[in-house]
Amino acid sequence: MYVSVLDGFYKLLHPCITVLVASVSRSGRPNVMACAWNMPVSEEPPMIAIAIGRESYTNELIKESGEFTVNILGREYLEAIWICGTRSGRNVNKFRLANLTPEPARRVKPPIIKECAAYLECKLHNYVDSGECTIFIGEVLDAYASKEVFSKDGWNIEKIGLPLHLGGRLFTIPREIIQPKLRK
Amino acid sequence: MYVSVLDGFYKLLHPCITVLVASVSRSGRPNVMACAWNMPVSEEPPMIAIAIGRESYTNELIKESGEFTVNILGREYLEAIWICGTRSGRNVNKFRLANLTPEPARRVKPPIIKECAAYLECKLHNYVDSGECTIFIGEVLDAYASKEVFSKDGWNIEKIGLPLHLGGRLFTIPREIIQPKLRK
Repeated sequence: MYVSVLDGFYKLLHPCITVLVASVSRSGRPNVMACAWNMPVSEEPPMIAIAIGRESYTNELIKESGEFTVNILGREYLEAIWICGTRSGRNVNKFRLANLTPEPARRVKPPIIKECAAYLECKLHNYVDSGECTIFIGEVLDAYASKEVFSKDGWNIEKIGLPLHLGGRLFTIPREIIQPKLRK
Repeated sequence: MYVSVLDGFYKLLHPCITVLVASVSRSGRPNVMACAWNMPVSEEPPMIAIAIGRESYTNELIKESGEFTVNILGREYLEAIWICGTRSGRNVNKFRLANLTPEPARRVKPPIIKECAAYLECKLHNYVDSGECTIFIGEVLDAYASKEVFSKDGWNIEKIGLPLHLGGRLFTIPREIIQPKLRK
């Protein structure tokens, strides 16, 4: 038996890794928001896409500066993710509110966030509207991660608890690893 | 200490839910491929985006027919996912090879896949190139899921083992659920 899920259909594509997107205003004021709608969109050249609400302050800042950083953090910062995903930086300093520390990035003006385990520094390549969001396509200028939790094979999910957004206030942590059996 | 991950940067945004994208040729021949690069891009109107290699047969078919379905399945079909992600439908019938059953969809010409737990039927809204891929933005015409494993709160991950792609041949299954503590 099927249940119709046009209302809440997006949860079918969750759980999604929830990253922090940092941006900066023309005057140099940084902002940060949580974003679960993200994906790689090219390996060579390296590119990613993020979908951000058209009304959000981050949307405005990325269009203004043409740059953003993607910051990935572990489950111990789940409350910070929640704060960054439910408040607007138009009215509050979310770094202070969420106890996050902005630090200079290597290649772009928006900051990276000290507490994170991995970083992608991006230059806006293109953007396209999609319903109530904008899809920002970023060229990845630099990408680096903590040696403790990431290797060339990917995340060491036994060491880092990666919070993936399931829906509402629910997140899930992947742990178990499986591999397809290969047929001859 | 940081490790540079420009090579393999995309694994920073994994694990990703791995779906099967079904498409159809003008002559009515269906095809299916595995796709980990997918995300919702609007709630209202309902829209999703998938990134598909420009050289792939599915890319050609979606441009040709303007429609596709997204099919989500559990860990018991991991080998089918692997086959659909590593072979091209130009040369083989991947449904037969992966033991998957195409069935008529409700609103679009491409089939849905009987063995799956949830379905999104999509009409192509727009597409944009990004490096070696094309980002297809689809309007969700219908979405439905098995009552056993999905409710309005999202996936019941205790009941369904959702395979998320980590990198290479590694997949991970989310199980543990966590919630942020709310501050007053």
